[in-house]
Amino acid sequence: MTSRADCEALDAADPLRALADRFAPGDPGTLYFDANSIGAMPKDVPARIDALLKEWRNLRRRGWSESNWLDAPRRLGAKLAPILGASPDEIVVGDTTSINLFKTLAAALSLRPSRSRIVSQAGTFPTDLYVVQGLKTLRPELELHLVPDGAAVEAAIDDRTAVVYLSQVDYRSARRLDIKGLTAAAHAKGALTVWDLSHGAGAVPADLDASGADFAVGCGYKYLCGGPGSPAYAFIARRRQEAVKPALAGWMGHANPFTFSTDYAPGPGMARFVVGTPSVIANAIMEGACDIWAEVDPAQVFAKHAALGDLLISLTKGILELGSPADASERGGFVALRHAAGAAVVGALADAGVVCSFRPPDSIRFGLSALYHRYVDMWEVAERLCRIAHDETWKDAKYQKTKTI
Amino acid sequence: MTSRADCEALDAADPLRALADRFAPGDPGTLYFDANSIGAMPKDVPARIDALLKEWRNLRRRGWSESNWLDAPRRLGAKLAPILGASPDEIVVGDTTSINLFKTLAAALSLRPSRSRIVSQAGTFPTDLYVVQGLKTLRPELELHLVPDGAAVEAAIDDRTAVVYLSQVDYRSARRLDIKGLTAAAHAKGALTVWDLSHGAGAVPADLDASGADFAVGCGYKYLCGGPGSPAYAFIARRRQEAVKPALAGWMGHANPFTFSTDYAPGPGMARFVVGTPSVIANAIMEGACDIWAEVDPAQVFAKHAALGDLLISLTKGILELGSPADASERGGFVALRHAAGAAVVGALADAGVVCSFRPPDSIRFGLSALYHRYVDMWEVAERLCRIAHDETWKDAKYQKTKTI
Repeated sequence: MTSRADCEALDAADPLRALADRFAPGDPGTLYFDANSIGAMPKDVPARIDALLKEWRNLRRRGWSESNWLDAPRRLGAKLAPILGASPDEIVVGDTTSINLFKTLAAALSLRPSRSRIVSQAGTFPTDLYVVQGLKTLRPELELHLVPDGAAVEAAIDDRTAVVYLSQVDYRSARRLDIKGLTAAAHAKGALTVWDLSHGAGAVPADLDASGADFAVGCGYKYLCGGPGSPAYAFIARRRQEAVKPALAGWMGHANPFTFSTDYAPGPGMARFVVGTPSVIANAIMEGACDIWAEVDPAQVFAKHAALGDLLISLTKGILELGSPADASERGGFVALRHAAGAAVVGALADAGVVCSFRPPDSIRFGLSALYHRYVDMWEVAERLCRIAHDETWKDAKYQKTKTI
Repeated sequence: MTSRADCEALDAADPLRALADRFAPGDPGTLYFDANSIGAMPKDVPARIDALLKEWRNLRRRGWSESNWLDAPRRLGAKLAPILGASPDEIVVGDTTSINLFKTLAAALSLRPSRSRIVSQAGTFPTDLYVVQGLKTLRPELELHLVPDGAAVEAAIDDRTAVVYLSQVDYRSARRLDIKGLTAAAHAKGALTVWDLSHGAGAVPADLDASGADFAVGCGYKYLCGGPGSPAYAFIARRRQEAVKPALAGWMGHANPFTFSTDYAPGPGMARFVVGTPSVIANAIMEGACDIWAEVDPAQVFAKHAALGDLLISLTKGILELGSPADASERGGFVALRHAAGAAVVGALADAGVVCSFRPPDSIRFGLSALYHRYVDMWEVAERLCRIAHDETWKDAKYQKTKTI
């Protein structure tokens, strides 16, 4: 049996333990287990905002040329590259995950002009599927083939398949797909891959370069701690970049934006996947997190994240049924526990000082961060959950309409 | 002859003079004439950011449901509607101008499925043209017909024309097109209109509803004062909204995003033109400006803006050649003065405490804001410009490589 003292010993031996001090605390006594939704705020964000607001007030128009506003998409992308297993020139930060899905999916399809099938899973995060449905308004010949959850995706990939289009991590169960294996299966049939890393990036390996992935996107505000609604990112393998003429073409992706040419000429490599003017303030905030990602050892992050999840699973055994894979190598960023009245349990946990989240039908999600969670936090949350389950606190009428988005 | 005292008298009689106090000052003694690039910062922006950062630190995931993060695209849109001459349910704030151009152009084209010609001008802002060129990668049959600058656009609109796609205001000369007249000409041929309002909105009337415009977009960080790289906005006339199935479809435009359905069902009206997760922090900052726009009288703004421009033109007569129309009803948000060494003049003006901007080949742009400029500022800038022109200060070697983006 693991004791609280065992957890404290793990914290004492944690090579990443000092990183927690880089993040601003929340409400005293509250445990935030929602890295799958909104990661914690780096402490230096207010200072970064102050500096940016000073540029706004004083430099004004000159900020475009005298500060580093326009470099941010590629500068931040380079800082995120190590945690994604990518090269610095393969990532740009900007726009939203949905917009980046459109960019990369259109790019992948453009490289397979004689094929029109997109293979995905029925349980892929809905916005990913909506992006395909939107793209179909422009390319009606596209066919979205959805593999039922649990069935093998490989079997659905054939020589009509242009793109295999998947979430790395299921947003309800945290089940993680094998990017390398599925990319190899796609390539074997002449198809390309687009990966949505939102529920994995910053928590578990993506190994984009080593896995041979072609395209990927992800969310900046979850495990990556970029702030609410922060810019997202797009990855395009270097070998694919120059072959793509972007469907979302804008002046910031032009080879020479300030010559104001009438004709679009794509910038070199990833530069072409920037579209409009970058969100300068949002990038300044997100850079606080990117600077942390640029200095951590990804292997330490992934090892600690797996250990936190394993510990949480072991400490909650017998309290609630596990909804995620027990094996850390098959899990994404959170641990899901199952309960038929999961939303009410999430409400009762909030009153007990635990912020987590719910997804229908029965998934209570505990988002874990190797940057700021302590092992003893796993002990604490298990203790509070145990009490709620034992007392059936969640049956209280006030928890029956808990908002859990 | 107008005197400085005359300018002071105009300020004393200005019904909008108190608004300047709502904006944070820049460097003492510096005159900012760059509302065409980065509008001034509302004074309450730091307090708004503090409030949002507190939500990030303390609410975390609960911000999505317990704060107003997800309503922002429509809430801010409704606040901008009066200054654009639109109805509150016709605008959403979000994404970039380029992305919104793609959204609205694809929407307009979807309503004219048997036509494939897009009529624009050669001098349209480049990103607008790049968006068409990007869209052509998906719909190669599209034909972009560019009318030479100065030629009548009306003559190019025919019954093959799907969309008339124009900037309201030329980004070099500030020449303003007649939205109402050109929309009527488009409609007479069965075509629809998409307007880029970036260099006019917040300065001159767009009168979107009264002019019959179908679609419009614009930039939030110029005259609208939303902050560097702030979210942009899209307008779709109410009568067109329900007919469009968005090409950029995302979960935040779904009728019921949190039912996590596999099938996209567009939200009612403008709701469907929101795509990904809103940029929460950028919206919180932009709302400072939107709250000012929601309370000003647009007629007073437009009248003062025209008077400021007329005054600047009159005070600079004989110093530099006017590059903009002399008639305020034909001008957009800035006044352009012409000089063959315009970039060097902009550099010399910066050292004289005047921030303005340059566009090739010879356009020195003075962006005017009715919200925070005083009439006496026009006097001051004319005086400083007069000195530089007289002394030929701009010939100094140090101004020959002035950065003017």
